[in-house]
Amino acid sequence: MSLVQERRETRMISVGNVTIGSNSPVAVQSMTNTRTEDVAATVAQIQRLTKAGCEIVRVAVPDMEAAQAVAAIRREIAIPLIADIHFDYRLAIAAMEAGADALRINPGNIGERRKIMEVANCARSKGVSIRVGVNAGSLEKDIVDRLGATPQAMAESALKNIEILEDLDFHDIKVSLKASDVQRTVEAYRLIASKTDVPLHVGVTEAGGLIAGITKSAIGIGMLLSEGIGDTIRVSLTRDPVEEVRTAWEILRALDIRHRGPELISCPTCGRCRIDLFTVAEQVEQALLDCPLTIKVAIMGCVVNGPGEAKEADIGIAGGDGVGILFKKGKVIRKIDQDSLVDVLLKEIENLQN
Amino acid sequence: MSLVQERRETRMISVGNVTIGSNSPVAVQSMTNTRTEDVAATVAQIQRLTKAGCEIVRVAVPDMEAAQAVAAIRREIAIPLIADIHFDYRLAIAAMEAGADALRINPGNIGERRKIMEVANCARSKGVSIRVGVNAGSLEKDIVDRLGATPQAMAESALKNIEILEDLDFHDIKVSLKASDVQRTVEAYRLIASKTDVPLHVGVTEAGGLIAGITKSAIGIGMLLSEGIGDTIRVSLTRDPVEEVRTAWEILRALDIRHRGPELISCPTCGRCRIDLFTVAEQVEQALLDCPLTIKVAIMGCVVNGPGEAKEADIGIAGGDGVGILFKKGKVIRKIDQDSLVDVLLKEIENLQN
Repeated sequence: MSLVQERRETRMISVGNVTIGSNSPVAVQSMTNTRTEDVAATVAQIQRLTKAGCEIVRVAVPDMEAAQAVAAIRREIAIPLIADIHFDYRLAIAAMEAGADALRINPGNIGERRKIMEVANCARSKGVSIRVGVNAGSLEKDIVDRLGATPQAMAESALKNIEILEDLDFHDIKVSLKASDVQRTVEAYRLIASKTDVPLHVGVTEAGGLIAGITKSAIGIGMLLSEGIGDTIRVSLTRDPVEEVRTAWEILRALDIRHRGPELISCPTCGRCRIDLFTVAEQVEQALLDCPLTIKVAIMGCVVNGPGEAKEADIGIAGGDGVGILFKKGKVIRKIDQDSLVDVLLKEIENLQN
Repeated sequence: MSLVQERRETRMISVGNVTIGSNSPVAVQSMTNTRTEDVAATVAQIQRLTKAGCEIVRVAVPDMEAAQAVAAIRREIAIPLIADIHFDYRLAIAAMEAGADALRINPGNIGERRKIMEVANCARSKGVSIRVGVNAGSLEKDIVDRLGATPQAMAESALKNIEILEDLDFHDIKVSLKASDVQRTVEAYRLIASKTDVPLHVGVTEAGGLIAGITKSAIGIGMLLSEGIGDTIRVSLTRDPVEEVRTAWEILRALDIRHRGPELISCPTCGRCRIDLFTVAEQVEQALLDCPLTIKVAIMGCVVNGPGEAKEADIGIAGGDGVGILFKKGKVIRKIDQDSLVDVLLKEIENLQN
C-alpha cells in the first residue's frame, strides 16, 4: 500500500535532456539568486545545486546582459537551464539564442501576437519548452476583477495562456499555479489537473524562511504529490537555494517517490539522553551530505532504547554515559568510546561504499 | 472551501485545564530535553516553550528523583505537565502524587494486573488522563513476530493497551502511533481512527534534523489533519524544542486550522533582487517572534513586482537600489531609505498593536 495515488497522466515535454511528464520521475528544480550576469557566481551556485541533487535550474533574465550571460553559464554547467523572463520577447529570443533549454514566460504578457509568434517559432525550432508560470499575485486584471485572486482565477489564467500557445501549434508546455498560501495553491493545482494534460510544475511561492517555508512547501507539494499531481517540483525558501533542493528531496523521500542519499533518523532527545545528540546529529548530517548510499542511519540518545527503536536502520549509534554503541539492524555490534562515536560511524559507512 | 475535512468525532479528555478531543481546538505539545531533576533548567525551558505557544508539555521520568521533581516544576509553570514513564508503575504513582496532569505510559508494559489497577485507580481519583504511546520501534514481541513492525501491528498494540485500561473502567485515554517514516505513521493513524473514538496525539517520531524533521512532520501531521484526524500534535526534531512548537503552529496555520502570530511571506529572491533579503527577512522574523497579531507581513526583493505580488499582505516592505518602499494591501504608502526598511516596518507593526 502506498500513500501516493497513481500519477496523473500528462504529456511529455523536454527541458534539455530532462523529460518532464507522467512517464518520467518527478524532477527537482531550483533557481539561482545570484546576479545572472555574474557568470562566475552563477555557475558556482549552479554547481553547488547540482551536487545537492538539483536536476533543472532557472536563472532570472531581467535584461539583455543577463540574456547574453546564458551562453557562458550554459557551457559550464551539467544540468538544463531555464531562462525566467517577464514581458520582453526580445529577452526570450536572446536567451534561446544563447542556449537556454527552456523559458518561463507567460505569453499573455508578451503583447502583440506577432511577438508571441516569434517566441513560439524560435522555441519550436530550437526544441525549447515553455513554462507558463501563473502567480496569484500577478494575475491579469480582467480575471481578478471578475474572480478575485482565487484558485478559479489562477486556473483560468493558466488555461488562457496555454490556449495562446496551442493556437500557434506550440505544445511543449508545462504550467505552474503558485500562491503564497497552501490552500489556494493546492486548490488551483487540483482544478487545472482536471482540465488539461500539460505537465505541472508544483510549488508554493514566497513561502518564507526556514521553518515556515519548509512547512508550507512540504504540506502543499506533499498533498499534491500524494494525489498523483506534479511532474516537477520547486521548494521556494528565502534562503540558500541548496536548502530548497534538500527539502525537495526530503519531500520525495517522505512519500517514498524517489530516494537520494542516506536517511537520518534521530530521536528528539529527552531527559534520558546522556550525550549532546544535537551536535552529533549535525556532524553526521554534514558529513553525509554527498554520500550516495540510500541507507537508513540512526543517531540515538540512549543505549537501552536506541537499537530497538531504530531497528529498521541499516546502521546506527547510540550514546550512553561515556560509552556508546554501534548497531546494525537493531543488533549491537560493539561498544565504542563516546568521543569516537561519529568517527566510527562515518568509517563504517565509508566501508559500505567500497 | 477548505483543504481540511470535517474533524473525526472523538471523546473528550482533559490534560489539566486543556481539553483534548473533537470539540476542542487541536492542541500543541512538546517535550523538554533537559534533565527533569534539574528543576531550574526544566522550568526555564518550559517557560520558553510556553511563550512560543506550547500548550501541554511532557517531561521524561526515568527515575524517582525525576518523579519527585515534578512537584517543584509544576508549581512554576502555567501549562499542563505530562510525565513520560516506561515500565515502572511506582514512578507513575509518584509522578501523579507530585502533581502530574497526565501520564504517558503503556499499561501493557507495566506488568501484573494489580500494578496496572493501582495506576488506573490513582489516575481516576486525581483526574489524570493517560496517553498510550505506541512506537513502531518498541512493539510487543508477540505482535511483531506475527505482523512485523507494520501499521496493522501498531494499531493492534494500541487497541490492546486501550482495552487493558477500559477493562478497568478507565476511559480518559488518548493514543499515539508513531513511526520514523511518514508512510507507516499515516497508515497506522488511519487504521486506528476507524476503530476507536479515543482522541489521537499525532506525530512522526525520530524525524531527524531541521530540514528532514520539519518535512516529515509537516507531510505526516499535515496529511492526517487534512483528513480530520488528530486532536493534539507534536513535532519531533533533534533540535531545541522551541522549534518543534514553531513548526507545529506553522502546520496548523498552513492548513488554516489555527493561527498564532504574524505570517511572513517573502520571495525566494532572484537575479532581480537588489537587497540582502535573507538578512532582512531573518531580522523581521526574529523581531516578530512574540508579536500576537495574526497579520500577513511581506518582505519582497523588488519594488516593481513586490507590492503587487504581495497584495494580500496587511503590510510589507520591498527593497530597491538604495530606496525601498512601505506598502499596505498592495498600495505603496511611501518611500523609505534602504537602511531603515526593517526599523520602519517594525515601528508600523508596533503601531498596529496600540
